[in-house]
Amino acid sequence: MTTKITIEDMTVFCKKKGFVYSSAEIYGGLSGFWDFGPLGVELKNNIKAEWWKFFVQNREDVVGVDGSIITNPKVWEASGHVDSFTDIYVKCVKCQKPNKIDKNELGKIKCECGGKYTNQGDFNLMFKTQVGPGKGITSYLRPETAQLIFTNFKLVAENARMKLPFGIAQIGKAFRNEISPREFLFRSREFEQMELQYFIDPDKVDDCPFYNKIKNNKINILTSRERSITIEEMLENKIFKNKWHAYWLYNSYQWFLSLGIDKNNLRLREHKKDELSHYANAAVDIEYNFPTGWKEIFGSHDRGQFDLTQHEKTSKKELKTYDETTNKKILPLVIESSFGVERAMLAFLFDAYNDDKKRGNILLKLHNKLAPVKIGVFSLVNKLNKETKQVYDILKEKVPCQYDVSGSVGRRYARADEIGIPFCITFDFDSLKDKSVTIRNRDDTKQVRIKIAELKNTLKALLNSEIKFEKAGKKI
Amino acid sequence: MTTKITIEDMTVFCKKKGFVYSSAEIYGGLSGFWDFGPLGVELKNNIKAEWWKFFVQNREDVVGVDGSIITNPKVWEASGHVDSFTDIYVKCVKCQKPNKIDKNELGKIKCECGGKYTNQGDFNLMFKTQVGPGKGITSYLRPETAQLIFTNFKLVAENARMKLPFGIAQIGKAFRNEISPREFLFRSREFEQMELQYFIDPDKVDDCPFYNKIKNNKINILTSRERSITIEEMLENKIFKNKWHAYWLYNSYQWFLSLGIDKNNLRLREHKKDELSHYANAAVDIEYNFPTGWKEIFGSHDRGQFDLTQHEKTSKKELKTYDETTNKKILPLVIESSFGVERAMLAFLFDAYNDDKKRGNILLKLHNKLAPVKIGVFSLVNKLNKETKQVYDILKEKVPCQYDVSGSVGRRYARADEIGIPFCITFDFDSLKDKSVTIRNRDDTKQVRIKIAELKNTLKALLNSEIKFEKAGKKI
Repeated sequence: MTTKITIEDMTVFCKKKGFVYSSAEIYGGLSGFWDFGPLGVELKNNIKAEWWKFFVQNREDVVGVDGSIITNPKVWEASGHVDSFTDIYVKCVKCQKPNKIDKNELGKIKCECGGKYTNQGDFNLMFKTQVGPGKGITSYLRPETAQLIFTNFKLVAENARMKLPFGIAQIGKAFRNEISPREFLFRSREFEQMELQYFIDPDKVDDCPFYNKIKNNKINILTSRERSITIEEMLENKIFKNKWHAYWLYNSYQWFLSLGIDKNNLRLREHKKDELSHYANAAVDIEYNFPTGWKEIFGSHDRGQFDLTQHEKTSKKELKTYDETTNKKILPLVIESSFGVERAMLAFLFDAYNDDKKRGNILLKLHNKLAPVKIGVFSLVNKLNKETKQVYDILKEKVPCQYDVSGSVGRRYARADEIGIPFCITFDFDSLKDKSVTIRNRDDTKQVRIKIAELKNTLKALLNSEIKFEKAGKKI
Repeated sequence: MTTKITIEDMTVFCKKKGFVYSSAEIYGGLSGFWDFGPLGVELKNNIKAEWWKFFVQNREDVVGVDGSIITNPKVWEASGHVDSFTDIYVKCVKCQKPNKIDKNELGKIKCECGGKYTNQGDFNLMFKTQVGPGKGITSYLRPETAQLIFTNFKLVAENARMKLPFGIAQIGKAFRNEISPREFLFRSREFEQMELQYFIDPDKVDDCPFYNKIKNNKINILTSRERSITIEEMLENKIFKNKWHAYWLYNSYQWFLSLGIDKNNLRLREHKKDELSHYANAAVDIEYNFPTGWKEIFGSHDRGQFDLTQHEKTSKKELKTYDETTNKKILPLVIESSFGVERAMLAFLFDAYNDDKKRGNILLKLHNKLAPVKIGVFSLVNKLNKETKQVYDILKEKVPCQYDVSGSVGRRYARADEIGIPFCITFDFDSLKDKSVTIRNRDDTKQVRIKIAELKNTLKALLNSEIKFEKAGKKI
């Protein structure tokens, strides 16, 4: 039996194990900002590396960029952020707590403490700063990575010799001056995005060569009610306006599954017409079943030609691409797939977290590809540390390992479970004779015996899920 | 024969090939900010991944963190940045161009145009921003990553169960509001650092187990004059105050060599007493021989106990670690190794760049581990595209490949040389019969023939420099 935990307990767990700290905790932190500890940075790096492989490196139709966080402020005028990236800022007359509300909620909603809200006016969520000496230029920390893809669209298409349809991907930080940051990593002021903008000839929005393979697959979706329907049915119901949008949503969903997320904890949610952003023709989120409810961890938008049109107008530069086959100039339509790194991380952590009562310790069942440490290397008794260290030294250059010789082996297994180490090796007295070690599988605690000489290849195959654990060595 | 280029030519080359663009170029850019194109982002990621492997993952005494860019402003009060991270800002009375100068240069130095400078006062180089609604809190974009390591020192030591001596590493962005950004990526306002802070018991600064292995190695160094001396001689000459500092400098130098930098283009430079930062007991840079002269690409500092003492005082939290063996509380001494990602990238690019007159094209001899694209896959004629594509599909999930079927094979080799692809494969008519392809080596244009079935393993061995090219296949 396993039990799940609250978001507050996850915050405590993440600090204790070195995943996430309040930023500059010795100074009391700063609301909405987080530092990542030794395990957090490895987990985050693994998530980003797997995303980059899946969406960029393994594909011939997608290339990457990395834009700057501060850029020419005209970008944010063209995108509409300077004028309208605002929340209504309210304050409780009783407890003085700040909050943000929607326009139609003014006068209707009260503070948790029961106090009335007073309207403090519109509040732009972009962080401002002055660039250069003297008065300088007012610019902004980017509130999203997307615009840096649109401004570079033409250069990238030319340099990388890309032809429509193709995508440009980016991983990087974004900043939003949230009035009320909350729910741990879920709504913070500094966060990281993984985004793909896919550019398509508006006349060929249904020419998607991958569509037929996926159209009959079913996913849970919340529209007016929750149900499980096929991608094809979603298209027929106009949840998607075109096949490319349907494909990218499905592919993004698959990415989460490929890294071990339980599909019962995922569902799609269609944006109603009245909640669509000004730039979107259609929008579908992927939500995760957090302890606080179903929450967005991924958003896809059919952005049409909105952004490129805005940048053409404001910059007075042509952003159309030339199509050799038809001799036409084309302003592409854009399908956006947008992931939050920290939200993905939180979903992976909650999904992996089990308070295993039988073992008496926490069991973090992270996917092998995401686990910050892949192999634990233990000696049965301190007398064998020297020989154990030799095994560790062979492995550590191939794969992130942890050498642990403190406390009982049982205690070390528990510690390894708690940070999600998939496999632990123990060097014992028999190892001196049979030149073998015991490997223990995190998820079911089964053990097999493997020759040290075969360790490197066997572990590689195990970590890549190429062989079954039971077949990796001799039964004990 | 090869010829080297100017920094302006490198800027043009980087834009043309998709390495680096002015940020938001369609709006005229913004001085000191750069976007990275498809090849730039891969090169930068490779540099960071190799650094992380070398300094973190392959070592048992170093763990990573990832701190936030905006943090509690008390951090920058404690570090001294709020009070003294300033330049003297001057303006030319004639051409109005801004510049920064040292205190002792006031009145002595003139503008390039011949005009006199007027003093505009001290200018703090930290970008300021308001956090939260209403008046909010004034905070800063971090001007360096180092402080986020010091503020997290105690938590990391406890969570990761690290014992002195040990290191904490971080890769991340930093921002400096330079008065006069210049020299392409060299002095920009937004940049990325790769830093290692190594914490040592002040009573054991010479207990470095690696020192004896490296002490007799010679490196070029500029002190009062340029010469080549051993690490041991540097220590005797008090260029380093302790063996750990000497070791980390040497190890950092080795990192550049391990990724192919010509050692004739590297030298060390000792900081004179009067140029030492207020926090440093000793400082040694690594400089690269850029077309604009020898310039710093790496800095190492013996920071003593300065930072942890400052944070103890300001936060009123104890940052000492407890030593189980001696029952003492220890405030460690810190050795800093600090790399600029973009400066390293620029050094790797200049070192790799050759205008190969004999070939008639540019040859970018990037190290295999850094090359953004590892393998080019060509068909001899378009008729063979289908079969070539099958070879590409096998390879692309293992290693970043480029499928190129446009223009003559000669033109495709030239294009591959220009972006540093180490190996190119050509599928020809014989391939249909002998199930083999031709591989061409970028650096000497030699070719061998390899069975398609062996391609994956052979390319892996070639890319890891485990076999010689001549032995990779049959002579042609």
